[in-house]
Amino acid sequence: MKDLVQDANFDCSSTGFALQAMDSSHVSLIHMQLRSDGFEHFRCDRNLSMGVSLNNMAKILKCMGSDDILTMKAEDQGDSVTFMFEAANQERISDFELKLMDIDSEQLGIPDTEYAATIKMPSTEFARICKDLSTIGDTVLIGVTKDGVRFSTQGDIGSANVTLRQHNNVDRPEENVVIDMQEPVALTFALRYLNSFAKATPLASQVLVSMSKELPVVVKYQMGDIGHISYYLAPKIEDDEEMEGDNA
Amino acid sequence: MKDLVQDANFDCSSTGFALQAMDSSHVSLIHMQLRSDGFEHFRCDRNLSMGVSLNNMAKILKCMGSDDILTMKAEDQGDSVTFMFEAANQERISDFELKLMDIDSEQLGIPDTEYAATIKMPSTEFARICKDLSTIGDTVLIGVTKDGVRFSTQGDIGSANVTLRQHNNVDRPEENVVIDMQEPVALTFALRYLNSFAKATPLASQVLVSMSKELPVVVKYQMGDIGHISYYLAPKIEDDEEMEGDNA
Amino acid sequence: MKDLVQDANFDCSSTGFALQAMDSSHVSLIHMQLRSDGFEHFRCDRNLSMGVSLNNMAKILKCMGSDDILTMKAEDQGDSVTFMFEAANQERISDFELKLMDIDSEQLGIPDTEYAATIKMPSTEFARICKDLSTIGDTVLIGVTKDGVRFSTQGDIGSANVTLRQHNNVDRPEENVVIDMQEPVALTFALRYLNSFAKATPLASQVLVSMSKELPVVVKYQMGDIGHISYYLAPKIEDDEEMEGDNA
Repeated sequence: MKDLVQDANFDCSSTGFALQAMDSSHVSLIHMQLRSDGFEHFRCDRNLSMGVSLNNMAKILKCMGSDDILTMKAEDQGDSVTFMFEAANQERISDFELKLMDIDSEQLGIPDTEYAATIKMPSTEFARICKDLSTIGDTVLIGVTKDGVRFSTQGDIGSANVTLRQHNNVDRPEENVVIDMQEPVALTFALRYLNSFAKATPLASQVLVSMSKELPVVVKYQMGDIGHISYYLAPKIEDDEEMEGDNA
Repeated sequence: MKDLVQDANFDCSSTGFALQAMDSSHVSLIHMQLRSDGFEHFRCDRNLSMGVSLNNMAKILKCMGSDDILTMKAEDQGDSVTFMFEAANQERISDFELKLMDIDSEQLGIPDTEYAATIKMPSTEFARICKDLSTIGDTVLIGVTKDGVRFSTQGDIGSANVTLRQHNNVDRPEENVVIDMQEPVALTFALRYLNSFAKATPLASQVLVSMSKELPVVVKYQMGDIGHISYYLAPKIEDDEEMEGDNA
Repeated sequence: MKDLVQDANFDCSSTGFALQAMDSSHVSLIHMQLRSDGFEHFRCDRNLSMGVSLNNMAKILKCMGSDDILTMKAEDQGDSVTFMFEAANQERISDFELKLMDIDSEQLGIPDTEYAATIKMPSTEFARICKDLSTIGDTVLIGVTKDGVRFSTQGDIGSANVTLRQHNNVDRPEENVVIDMQEPVALTFALRYLNSFAKATPLASQVLVSMSKELPVVVKYQMGDIGHISYYLAPKIEDDEEMEGDNA
C-alpha cells in the first residue's frame, strides 16, 4: 500500500478501522476496512481520524516480532499513536510512538455497483500473471467470457496471452478460478498499478477482480472475517480493444 | 549464455536445434546442440534459421512455471516464434510470441581436435574455483599433470593456487576428477570469460575442460542425452607461463 | 570488523593472536584475542606483528569451504602470510598468499575497570534492538536498573523504547537476560557504531554490555574458550539524559 500512497487518514470508529486514499497521481484508489471483531480487544470511544505516514508506520511495524502481541493506542486530541509490541513471554516490551499529521482528504463515495463480471482466482496467480506480462508490455487487456479469463499484452519484443479456465476443486478451494458473469467484458489497465495492488497477495489466498464497462476495476483481497483491502483503477480508453462494447 | 551473446541464430533441422555464436568482443565462441530425441515431440519439416534476442527469450522463459509443458512453434517464412506454456492440469495456457530478427552470422568450422589433456570434474567445483580466483587476479593458469590439475592466479593483493587431485569414487561419480592426458599442458585464460561459461553449471553435474597448446580451451557441459553446450576461449599468450612447451 | 577498520596489525605470540585497532574516525576501538589453545596446532617461535588489509583477508577467507581445514603460515621477516585450505577428503588443496603491510599503530592501554553495570543478553536480541531503533533515531539511551534494561531513542518521526526484563531460564540459557549492577547507569551512544559491532553476532550466542558513567561502553562477544572480540565506544555527552548522575 505504501508504494502507492504516502500519507493517509485512518478513520477509527466503534465498528473498526477504515482507510481510503488515492495514489499520488490520482489514478487509483485504495479502500481498507478492518472490522472491530477482527481484533482481540477493540475500544474506540469517539470517532477519530489519524493522519499517518504509511512509510514511517511500515518502518515501525517491521520492528514487530512474528509472535509479538500488538497494541495500538491513540488519545483524543493526541498528536501521536503508540504501537506496543509484547513478546509472548512478556520479557520484552517495545513501544513505538509515531507522530500524526494533518492530512486533507475528501472521502470519495464508492458506488455499490453490480459488476458485469467478477473473477475469483488465486491471488498468487493474479500476481504472477501481472508480473509476467509486465516483461512484455505496459498494459493488460483482461477479457472475461463464460469459459475463462484471458490476459493479453503486447510490446516491442512481441505479445503474450495467458488464459485461465474456470475450474472448481473442492479439495483445494484456494486454487479455484470461479467466474460470475452477467455479460462478457474486456478492459485495458496499466500493469504498473496492478503490480502495486498485487503486493497485498500475502494477505489473502484468493483475489476478487470485478469489472464493468467504463467503470474502474475493483481488485479485492478479503482477509477472512477481519476485513478487506480493495483497490480501484480506471480502465484505459483505447481504440483497438477487441471486445469493447460487444454483447454476449 | 545471454551474458556473452546478445542475439543469435537458432538453426533447426530434423535432427534438432543448434546454435553457434561469438561473444560481442569476438573472443569466445558458444556452440549449443539439442538433439531432437531430447524432445517429447519434435517436428521440423524444413531447415529454418531463427534469429532471436537471447535477452528477450530469457524474459519469456522466466514466465514458464516449473511444471509447465513448453511447446515452441515457428512457421516457414514467419517473423515470430511462439512459446506455449501449459500448466500440468490444463487450467492455464500461456502463449508468448517473440519477434524474430535477421542476424548475419557466418558459421565457423570447429576443428575436431585431439586434445593434449581433458579434465572431467564437478561443474560446481569448476565454477567455484573460477569465482574464488577472480577475487585475487584477472587470469588463471590451468596446468595439468598426471596427478592433478592446478589453477593459479596472482594479483595486487597476493596470489592463489588451487590443486585438485585425480580421484574416482564409484559411489559418487559426480564428484570425480578424471584426467585424460597425452602430455602436460599449461595455458592462461581470462577469468572473466570462464566465469560467464560457468553460468551453465546447473545444466550438468560434470564439466569437461579440454586443452592443447596454442588452441582454444573447450569447456563442455553435457546435458545427458539431450545435447550439450560448449564454450571455446583462446588462451592468453604470456611470457612467464610456467610449463609452456614442456614435454611429459 | 572490516566495516570499522581497514587495516590492522595481528600480533602473534606463543599465547595466541591479538588485534587492536581504532576505527578510521577514532571513535571506537576493537580488541580481539584468540588464545593458542583454541587452535588444533599453534606454533609461534618469535613474536610477530603482521599488518593486513582486513578487506583483502575477508576476500580470501570467503574462498574457504565450510568443512575445510585452515592453516595459516607466516615467516619471520616475510612479507606475506599464507592461508591454506584443505578439503576434508584431501582432494582439493588451496593456498592463498596475502601481502603484508606496514601499519603504524600505538597500542592503547585498556583500563581493567569495575563497571557500574553489566548486561548479559542474547546477541541476536542486542543486534535486533539496535537495528530497530536505527529506523527511528540516531542515538540510543541505554538505561539499566535492577529490573531490566531500557533502550530508548527519538527521531523526527516519533520515539521508541524497548525494555528487557531480567530473566533466567535454565533450559535455554542462551535466551537469558542477566543484569549485574552496582548502581543504575544510563548512557547515550551512536547507533551507527553499535550496529557495526553487532555484525559479530554470529560469533557468540550472548553479548556482554558493560557500562560506567563517563566511561566507554564495552560490547564483548566471548567465543567459547577460543577467545573474544570486544568493542569500545565512548558515550555521547548530552544535557537531557534522563538518569545521568542519579544514584540508586
